[in-house]
Amino acid sequence: MNLVLITKREAAEGIAADDPRVKHLVQTVGLRAGQSFHVGLAGALRGLAEITAITPFLTFNITWEQTVQTKLPLTVIVGLPRPQTAKKVLHDLASLGVARMIFFEAEKADPGYLTSSLWQEDEWQSHLRKGTEQACSTLVPEVLRTRSLEAALALVAENNWRVALDPYEASGALGEAPAGSIAGCLAIGPERGWSDAERKLLVARGFVLHHLGDRILRVEAACLVGGALMLARLHVWERHQSLGT
Amino acid sequence: MNLVLITKREAAEGIAADDPRVKHLVQTVGLRAGQSFHVGLAGALRGLAEITAITPFLTFNITWEQTVQTKLPLTVIVGLPRPQTAKKVLHDLASLGVARMIFFEAEKADPGYLTSSLWQEDEWQSHLRKGTEQACSTLVPEVLRTRSLEAALALVAENNWRVALDPYEASGALGEAPAGSIAGCLAIGPERGWSDAERKLLVARGFVLHHLGDRILRVEAACLVGGALMLARLHVWERHQSLGT
Repeated sequence: MNLVLITKREAAEGIAADDPRVKHLVQTVGLRAGQSFHVGLAGALRGLAEITAITPFLTFNITWEQTVQTKLPLTVIVGLPRPQTAKKVLHDLASLGVARMIFFEAEKADPGYLTSSLWQEDEWQSHLRKGTEQACSTLVPEVLRTRSLEAALALVAENNWRVALDPYEASGALGEAPAGSIAGCLAIGPERGWSDAERKLLVARGFVLHHLGDRILRVEAACLVGGALMLARLHVWERHQSLGT
Repeated sequence: MNLVLITKREAAEGIAADDPRVKHLVQTVGLRAGQSFHVGLAGALRGLAEITAITPFLTFNITWEQTVQTKLPLTVIVGLPRPQTAKKVLHDLASLGVARMIFFEAEKADPGYLTSSLWQEDEWQSHLRKGTEQACSTLVPEVLRTRSLEAALALVAENNWRVALDPYEASGALGEAPAGSIAGCLAIGPERGWSDAERKLLVARGFVLHHLGDRILRVEAACLVGGALMLARLHVWERHQSLGT
């Protein structure tokens, strides 16, 4: 991990030596007193933590950033995939820095996926958190689940550039954003693709069907590639704000 | 898999019923006589195979495409990553459809990675093949290994748009390709990043250092995102050629 998410209390008092994060920093990374690592408060500031002691608590002095990093203005709607795939989507879209993911129960998805421990317990949050830490960010994306595509689409803001990926019925490659776009929504079907009714609904709600060339990507790869292309076309990366600069 | 790579002999005589590909098609997908699946000859034509019998050989009649799919004009140079990461890079870049990958022994990489069964045996080829089959393509990328970045760079064609990803020393976000570009080369460091000498060498050889925003992606995600962005900017997806259209 490139950053360790901590609580306000841990920022003040340190983290117990037997915490998995401390074990990672001390045993795997090999950090010692005097050395530094990146920390952050979920949804808030990042900082550079200089270690003052390792036991019985890992304690540190934090130099905080001046301003909170910017949330990237992208919502990704995904047809509920197999739990193994959903884990990767959660991690990878968190590391890409999208603001929000909405998983919907697609017509061609298996509702049994929801009985997985990924969703029944808090497991999904740990993948999200790891992706955010990988990104060296504190901005854990918001994650929602809906019973249908229609319910997911009702949550999309009016002003969003609306793109759905569909290798079969696309009108063309994912290209430039409409002039003046400042936020986007990407919709991706489940492994078995969109139903005809879902395709019609997308078009009725202003989504344009695009492809990513003639290679068929896995759901998790399509999320990452489609999301990154939209962020690039929205020119959000030009407001670059890396930690320590 | 969206396509099954077969040999010329298998195209003529069928595939033995105990072959893992047949087990997948018959037992997992549930195909029966009269149903169809996509096949292809590595590096050559794709076709639609209609099943005529399941045992003792899976036999089929193939309707071949008219022309071979286009290779995508991108080379990706990657600092030799951990074997677990290399597997994902091989699969994902094959599914993206890049023409060539070059893995180099980076200054900040562990040469021990080369002793992995991934590279000592033919394991790397199976990941490459699976990624190509996932893409519904027959164009298995060329994979090379070099002892240094310098040796890798010597293999890059003169006319290539040259981009290196570097979240720390980048001059700006990965943006438009220089006018007239028809092919590209993307260079990505190993997990621990570029050495100063490697950065200097890249710049001396005409590479521009770019970032993908202020989130830090894993090596495999950076390969997929950086590669897709370059393909999009090279406008290669507009020559779309899906199977059966």
